[in-house]
Amino acid sequence: MAHIHLPEGVPGIRGPMLISPETTTPLRELAEILLRGPNTLTRAEREMIATYVSSENDCYYCQHSHGAAAAEHLGGDYGLIDQIKRDFGAASVSEKLKALLTIAGKVQKGGKQFTTADVECARAQGATDKEIHDTVLIAAAFCMYNRYVDGLATWQPHDVEVYREIGQRVVNHGYTASGWQKPVTAAAR
Amino acid sequence: MAHIHLPEGVPGIRGPMLISPETTTPLRELAEILLRGPNTLTRAEREMIATYVSSENDCYYCQHSHGAAAAEHLGGDYGLIDQIKRDFGAASVSEKLKALLTIAGKVQKGGKQFTTADVECARAQGATDKEIHDTVLIAAAFCMYNRYVDGLATWQPHDVEVYREIGQRVVNHGYTASGWQKPVTAAAR
Repeated sequence: MAHIHLPEGVPGIRGPMLISPETTTPLRELAEILLRGPNTLTRAEREMIATYVSSENDCYYCQHSHGAAAAEHLGGDYGLIDQIKRDFGAASVSEKLKALLTIAGKVQKGGKQFTTADVECARAQGATDKEIHDTVLIAAAFCMYNRYVDGLATWQPHDVEVYREIGQRVVNHGYTASGWQKPVTAAAR
Repeated sequence: MAHIHLPEGVPGIRGPMLISPETTTPLRELAEILLRGPNTLTRAEREMIATYVSSENDCYYCQHSHGAAAAEHLGGDYGLIDQIKRDFGAASVSEKLKALLTIAGKVQKGGKQFTTADVECARAQGATDKEIHDTVLIAAAFCMYNRYVDGLATWQPHDVEVYREIGQRVVNHGYTASGWQKPVTAAAR
């Protein structure tokens, strides 16, 4: 049961977002810009960074919803997302993305874990200052979103179809409010 | 030295904010709503929660800038803010705020540390669902802001006057962009 009264049957972050519309607007805008705005990192790469951080924070809802978004951006490659979470070093992704995932994993642990050596490694793989900045901010932001979702003990269904639907909705409509007016739950389909 | 190229002489979060205006807008709006929007918690109480979380995350810039904002809201009581960071249980604040600071400290450690017993304790001291929600989101948000500031190894001056000026500017002008067009550094005064 959630720690505070939340609307029933609304999964994850969408529960507290419904009761706090004033904070929801900037939270949704930040996700939209970070994960879908113009960027030299693809939307799939940015969702993989968000998924990996959410997995390290053990947030079921976030790792599965953003994992689904990443997989749907890649035409449904859910196996790659599982591999990223299990051991990204062995995954079929670029060395640059692996260096950025290393940075994201450090930031997940705390603000002072990410070192000059990690920056140099990312630069050696072609990462730009903007890509490093965005990776740090995505990782930091998911330390917020994950704590918001788990800190309030929100309802997080374990139904792969719920997350597939969320992933497809993100790919097609993004994170801002207009894409989220219909309910997303197994019961609502 | 910062991990990426940032404007010189601009302290803390304001450096990366200047190079990423598109993410800065929602980051500033979120701080403005959480810390200064209409709320049954005072602005000073919310700044104390932000300060405590930033102190637990060992973020020098955030704990001193938000600590200064809290102190300035209280007419300059910097001693109380030091006490909150050192041992809030012994501070001259309400039992409700102590219960909310306990929740914030749990959320700082991770999304799953905050328990039903913590909620019951906060409710027994008169905390509402909205206040608990806002406390969780302030704590979560400062796990993001702190990581953004420290993760990029931003410049963080150790000059009490810099932070006093930041605190006064927050009290008078808030967090949205219009209050931050002039430089805030010791050198700029």
